Amino acid sequence: MLELYHAGLTSCSKKVRHCLHEKGLDYQSRFVDLTRFEHHDPAYLALNPNGVVPTLVHDGAVIIESGVINEYLDELFPDRPLRPDTPLPRARMRVFTKMADEYGLPATRVPTWTRLKRNQIKAMDEAEFTDVIRNTPLVDHRLKLRALRGDGFSAAEQDEALGRMDYIYDRCEAALADGPYLAGGMFSLAEVALLPYIDAFATLRPELPRTHPRTGEWYGRLMDRAAVKETYFHSVEAPAT
Amino acid sequence: MLELYHAGLTSCSKKVRHCLHEKGLDYQSRFVDLTRFEHHDPAYLALNPNGVVPTLVHDGAVIIESGVINEYLDELFPDRPLRPDTPLPRARMRVFTKMADEYGLPATRVPTWTRLKRNQIKAMDEAEFTDVIRNTPLVDHRLKLRALRGDGFSAAEQDEALGRMDYIYDRCEAALADGPYLAGGMFSLAEVALLPYIDAFATLRPELPRTHPRTGEWYGRLMDRAAVKETYFHSVEAPAT
Repeated sequence: MLELYHAGLTSCSKKVRHCLHEKGLDYQSRFVDLTRFEHHDPAYLALNPNGVVPTLVHDGAVIIESGVINEYLDELFPDRPLRPDTPLPRARMRVFTKMADEYGLPATRVPTWTRLKRNQIKAMDEAEFTDVIRNTPLVDHRLKLRALRGDGFSAAEQDEALGRMDYIYDRCEAALADGPYLAGGMFSLAEVALLPYIDAFATLRPELPRTHPRTGEWYGRLMDRAAVKETYFHSVEAPAT
Repeated sequence: MLELYHAGLTSCSKKVRHCLHEKGLDYQSRFVDLTRFEHHDPAYLALNPNGVVPTLVHDGAVIIESGVINEYLDELFPDRPLRPDTPLPRARMRVFTKMADEYGLPATRVPTWTRLKRNQIKAMDEAEFTDVIRNTPLVDHRLKLRALRGDGFSAAEQDEALGRMDYIYDRCEAALADGPYLAGGMFSLAEVALLPYIDAFATLRPELPRTHPRTGEWYGRLMDRAAVKETYFHSVEAPAT
């Protein structure tokens, strides 16, 4: 049995939910309400020592990290493959899944955490905030929470986020000159990993898909996929909180 | 033919050189002198648009990103495997290779760039420095170079680096309770990816292997491997610059 602990429409949760829907795999959805800090519950931290979502539990075995989970699912369930079957395009795919983690996620956190978490963090009393910090295992997350409670993200951090958004769109635009998908001929985990960021950045900066026409066309094609429609919008599985 | 563009003893270059030596693969070594900004040469940027080392060229095909290169090599040359052959320990391995990239590398840059690059960056005239910035494709690298030219890394950045070092040692210590290696029974790319950081942090903070005894013992075993001895010290392939 597959159980997915996830937070609905957050980017890394969408990555794994999208992968499961593309592959047509049944799973038990375990919604983790981040606004109630359910990711800091001791029972959840015992599964995921980083205190982040998602986490997959497969017949009792625990797998963390969205990109690692998606490769695990594709190795274990080879039907409807989401990875090229030869090493070179597969390496190309991994360059993009890595880019999603290292450029997409940090860039999206700056506007998203400001919008979704800042009011709540600022409204806490000192004891509550101290508790949140103590229960946050990742040092970079603790620093970001402190920034939200203080003056917010600096101008330099906001500029860096914009630069990372440009970088991702530029790299996709270059790659899509060689094929309909990032790793070449096939829809792969590269698309699954980058789409949450492509979509979030297009919402924040609608000029990006226009100034990157191949990326804009590809983005439109991806949003039309049935598995994306099952994943990217509010549903029983992904409630508004 | 395998050709590796690398910078000798820098962490990501060591990762791929170590992997090649573990697997006993012959390759042409192409040393890229970072102190002379050879990674900004247009010919190199045409291979690696990020302007970083290493880059593998295999019969004309270009593969970038050290962790991606190492999985590519292990897929293509299955003798002396460096990845577990079942999905669950392989996923566990990838959690650690990802940790190396996302926690090890940023933590090591703070002291290393300060020690190796700061004097050179500060001594440049304005036109030279503008050139360096213009030729640096990665936005986070540009910000770090600007910090080096100014007041250096902030106290918060230095604290974050220390927190990342603790995090890696803590996670290794926990994982090594379950087996002699990070992914369980076998030496894998998890060791190859983390050793540059374990070694660098032990040099900066000699207490770390003592306060993490399983990690200290494992670190000692790794440093005794023949492929590590071929990789981690100055040699014709890895000259002092």
